[in-house]
Amino acid sequence: MIKNILFLFISLHSIYCISQTEDLNLIPWPREVNIRNGYFIINSNFTISVTEISSKRVKVATTKFLQRLSGRTGIFMENGFAFNSSKIKNPSLAITFNRIGKLEIYEDESYELKVSDTKIYIHANTDLGVIHALETLLQLMTISHDNYYFPKVTINDKPRFTWRGLMIDVARHFQPVDVLKRNLDAMAAVKLNVFHWHLTDDQGFRIESKSYPKLHELGSDGLYYTQSQIKEVVEYASNRGIRIVPEVDVPGHATAILTAYPEIGSKDTIYNIERFSGIFHPTLDPTNEKTYEILGGLFGEIANLFPDKYIHIGGDENEGKHWNENENIQKFKKSHNLETNHDLQTYFNIRLERILAKSGKSIMGWEEIMTEKIPTSALIHSWKGVNEGVPAGQSLINAAKKGYKTVLSNGYYIDLLQPASAHYVVNPLPKNNTLTEIEKARILGGEATMWSELVTPLTIDSRLWPRTAAIAERLWSSEEINDVSNMYKRLEHVSFRLEELGITHIRNRDVILRNITNNQNIEALIKLTKVYEPLKIYTRNKGGVEYKSYSPFTLFADACTADASDAIVFNNLVNEYLTTKKTASKKEILIMLKDWAANYTLFLQIQKSSPILKTIAPLSKNLSAISKSLISILESKNKKKSDIENCTKLLIEIKKPVADVELVIYNSLKKLSYLWSNKKVHIN
Amino acid sequence: MIKNILFLFISLHSIYCISQTEDLNLIPWPREVNIRNGYFIINSNFTISVTEISSKRVKVATTKFLQRLSGRTGIFMENGFAFNSSKIKNPSLAITFNRIGKLEIYEDESYELKVSDTKIYIHANTDLGVIHALETLLQLMTISHDNYYFPKVTINDKPRFTWRGLMIDVARHFQPVDVLKRNLDAMAAVKLNVFHWHLTDDQGFRIESKSYPKLHELGSDGLYYTQSQIKEVVEYASNRGIRIVPEVDVPGHATAILTAYPEIGSKDTIYNIERFSGIFHPTLDPTNEKTYEILGGLFGEIANLFPDKYIHIGGDENEGKHWNENENIQKFKKSHNLETNHDLQTYFNIRLERILAKSGKSIMGWEEIMTEKIPTSALIHSWKGVNEGVPAGQSLINAAKKGYKTVLSNGYYIDLLQPASAHYVVNPLPKNNTLTEIEKARILGGEATMWSELVTPLTIDSRLWPRTAAIAERLWSSEEINDVSNMYKRLEHVSFRLEELGITHIRNRDVILRNITNNQNIEALIKLTKVYEPLKIYTRNKGGVEYKSYSPFTLFADACTADASDAIVFNNLVNEYLTTKKTASKKEILIMLKDWAANYTLFLQIQKSSPILKTIAPLSKNLSAISKSLISILESKNKKKSDIENCTKLLIEIKKPVADVELVIYNSLKKLSYLWSNKKVHIN
Repeated sequence: MIKNILFLFISLHSIYCISQTEDLNLIPWPREVNIRNGYFIINSNFTISVTEISSKRVKVATTKFLQRLSGRTGIFMENGFAFNSSKIKNPSLAITFNRIGKLEIYEDESYELKVSDTKIYIHANTDLGVIHALETLLQLMTISHDNYYFPKVTINDKPRFTWRGLMIDVARHFQPVDVLKRNLDAMAAVKLNVFHWHLTDDQGFRIESKSYPKLHELGSDGLYYTQSQIKEVVEYASNRGIRIVPEVDVPGHATAILTAYPEIGSKDTIYNIERFSGIFHPTLDPTNEKTYEILGGLFGEIANLFPDKYIHIGGDENEGKHWNENENIQKFKKSHNLETNHDLQTYFNIRLERILAKSGKSIMGWEEIMTEKIPTSALIHSWKGVNEGVPAGQSLINAAKKGYKTVLSNGYYIDLLQPASAHYVVNPLPKNNTLTEIEKARILGGEATMWSELVTPLTIDSRLWPRTAAIAERLWSSEEINDVSNMYKRLEHVSFRLEELGITHIRNRDVILRNITNNQNIEALIKLTKVYEPLKIYTRNKGGVEYKSYSPFTLFADACTADASDAIVFNNLVNEYLTTKKTASKKEILIMLKDWAANYTLFLQIQKSSPILKTIAPLSKNLSAISKSLISILESKNKKKSDIENCTKLLIEIKKPVADVELVIYNSLKKLSYLWSNKKVHIN
Repeated sequence: MIKNILFLFISLHSIYCISQTEDLNLIPWPREVNIRNGYFIINSNFTISVTEISSKRVKVATTKFLQRLSGRTGIFMENGFAFNSSKIKNPSLAITFNRIGKLEIYEDESYELKVSDTKIYIHANTDLGVIHALETLLQLMTISHDNYYFPKVTINDKPRFTWRGLMIDVARHFQPVDVLKRNLDAMAAVKLNVFHWHLTDDQGFRIESKSYPKLHELGSDGLYYTQSQIKEVVEYASNRGIRIVPEVDVPGHATAILTAYPEIGSKDTIYNIERFSGIFHPTLDPTNEKTYEILGGLFGEIANLFPDKYIHIGGDENEGKHWNENENIQKFKKSHNLETNHDLQTYFNIRLERILAKSGKSIMGWEEIMTEKIPTSALIHSWKGVNEGVPAGQSLINAAKKGYKTVLSNGYYIDLLQPASAHYVVNPLPKNNTLTEIEKARILGGEATMWSELVTPLTIDSRLWPRTAAIAERLWSSEEINDVSNMYKRLEHVSFRLEELGITHIRNRDVILRNITNNQNIEALIKLTKVYEPLKIYTRNKGGVEYKSYSPFTLFADACTADASDAIVFNNLVNEYLTTKKTASKKEILIMLKDWAANYTLFLQIQKSSPILKTIAPLSKNLSAISKSLISILESKNKKKSDIENCTKLLIEIKKPVADVELVIYNSLKKLSYLWSNKKVHIN
């Protein structure tokens, strides 16, 4: 048993070789880190004391802390639970705090963490700070040949932004409670503090409604959260210092609501739960009092279920087609002096705002709700950007200037499968802004958005993580923390550690590949997943009509992820080689090319195992062919023209997307091939 | 998109080469299977029609069926849901049944399944039969190079036993709702129909009690099921044709209850939730009316939560130490003419039986409850066997003869980590029994028991599956179905398919190994998990005091499983070689030995990655050494005495358990080494 071995080490007071300048794998990086010479070695006597203030959060977090520490190290802890500070002398870790934190904006989440070689101190004003500190401490844990230890360090930390959110869309694909819970754990691990729960959309209404039960009975295919489950998730989040902002998206994105209550639709038609993705016309009728009766009942229930001050009413992407086609609605607009559909939606939003105000709630909505008459108590959620034909996050600045509190999601659309670095550089409040201090304070932070058109419980984790951790750092840490390669290094470590919280982003890749191969050797496919990535930014599922909600998401593209690991290495190598012409880089490039060239042989051994492998075959074949071609060019002293021509042909072939993935070493391959042609090579 | 490819195939009416005699990977094997020449090819037009009887079970099962079929094949189904039979002409699969099945013993679960080359029929008396048929159909799905298809087949099926159970102990380690749900899915996949929920024990009381809330507040460390969650699990099981029998273990195994209500204990002491495993003394006081008051309230709640007729009251392993020490209890025995502690327990059981009868429930209990005065409405759960010093399952026969209905668990202790074959041969009703037909009918079936001293949500699936499927076959199929190697062949396939239901038995191995190696290359460790198995039958955690409930179960032993795959292959090879002396076998043996010999080099590359690897090092080192030694013996023409002596020494070394695992090719290695010594070799 390892406990004995470690105990022995401790009693002998041995000296270990531990570098003091090593990098710490912290995400988000704290405000102030001072590392000193020394370390606290973890052993089975590890104990925790906690201030005598009863905090469920600290109780849950300390118990989990000990379990995770024991699980990582294999150390048999003598105590599985923290002690009240009066019950223990000289604990390994002494936790003190002043009060229970409130789950609201601007709350104090700061903490101090001090590791000496014999003792660890955590102090915070609120218990929210304490649980952040415990996550930092777990990230500090370091492994040497002989020991698990915490480096001697003093950390003073607090977040840059008060709103650090993740939105999960559970309408387009339902995500059961356990998926949410494990992701709440992961959010807490990187200090995110707002879970925005996108609960309704055209494809499903996911809340049990007691006042209007047809909503979940007819609008969900049986896939909804009971009110008990919602309370369970709210409590689970609260124990992890996470607020929940529920969203009921109205008046558009309302097909599921209208499937249950067609009488409040703007068109007299039969509505059915939507199976495709995109923007659809079914819209609530804002001129019908029954609409407000139903929404009043529903939002009343929601106000009771969710303690948070904010309720998100959606409000996005209403194109008003059914409004235009409805004579009564047109008459209403005239009689109420509402010129545009946008004016009509404002009328609707203001009515909702009043309904919610009765329950003491404020509205939050996508940026479309920001119209003249909306009170500044509304929180503006900025989402549009270049894809929508406007400057990135323009509405964020506008909102702040107009007096609204606001949160940024443009640039944090994690479902688009862009590299972590693309999100990492998005700063809600760049230095060269023209805002006053008061305006700046209205920019509360940001939210990663996980739209779920193309994800299921099997794959959602690999679409969320680890990239969401990079966004978490942007929202917590100083804007000076912006070294991309250092972020990637830390991200890799945090990614691996997320497995201990039950996040399935790594393990489920092989599950998909075993299915594809009918349980044959998956090595050839694993290698391919390291250079192919799913098509990005809405190019998979073009127009929203390739995939239905019940289409298979067990395809090769679903096993692939953003930031394909071998591609990152190869792309760096090629850039290095092109810049420096180092023989060492060339050698490493050749090793990788040879590996890909040979991989097709391995693929051929399994190719007949299932029909679906036929659709993947070109990925392996083309990669092998171009690798061979480049090897031949790189290894021969006299470059043959035919080789280069062949390579150019293959490049055209390999650029075509196959099986919804793309080769993300394409540019590097092209650069290598251009090197001996007359074309100019751009090194990025 | 594969949908297009397949559609093309169908429209061309192409002919495919599909062997008609191929083996089907069905578990449990059906009563009657007739396979014919032909196949039904699966394509995107696949539709299902269902009799117009509203069955939630069939609705859930058909939707899941289409999802699973689509997920396996990558086929984009045009319809994600079944149709009512009046709404569709000429469906691919036509389902008919007569009535909704009742979740009770002796219910009709039979079905007929017919696959022709253009259509599939399922007919059953009850919807329970329908959902079994759908699982059989999914198991029938076969993959060729060109197609996913169902072979042309006619199946008539019904179970041999009406009680086919799995018990999960959620007391010693709590198992959250999602763990239970995924295992209920797996149970349904192999046609198990009783989930025995062991809800309380010394280590935890896991039910929210509204009448006696201290039970879950003080007895669970916060790890319990709310009543909403219990209802949710009951409904989930019911939709899968699974009854739930809840167990509250009394009067022994009651430390958690007494932690909450010490006043009903037999000893005046302070009780604390137990952290170790084994048999403990805390016992309810059967002479105290308050005991029946509390149990009355509690069992009343349980009777309301669980619709099943049976409630399991435990009743096992009460050694009566605290009864003996308590003067009042001794007086009570005398005044009530109760001679032994067993008589006193019978008094207690009868009082409970009456409490439960008021709610219309019958008691089930471990075999200790079978005493003279217990009415024959009680169901006897037979668990003792050779480990407890009695013939295997003796109480099963006794119970049937005495007029009790009875269920067998002896031989089905899946937590002991024995090979699947060990459980597979255990027959609740062997041919050469002396029971009358009436007595035989009282033997309802059996239950696999998953005690959870050494499992957590991370590892429980790998302890349950796939071996529980072998028990499921024993309980469903004819006793004539008993070819062990054929069972293993089918088991491997079913095991892989369980992944689609979310069972984590395969994927979580690598999670553990990544943690152990601090995210380094885990290949060397994977290889070791294929020949090392966790210590079996209570030899891991000797005396119950090595592990506490919060000890780490993230160790190498937790990554290992029963039926280690390379060991099965190697042991077969060695037996074959010793019997036949085939050169081919010898060659294959040498390949495996060389692989193990070389594996230590790979291990050394990662050995310094973490302290815990030190504890595993001998496993790799010793295996490598003995492999090298045997290679030298096998490859040299003149066997050297020194080689054989060296080998013998290494055998002694390698037999010692290290890191809670044992080398399960040990006997084969010994046989190989004995071959050239003077010792006799037994081939098994």
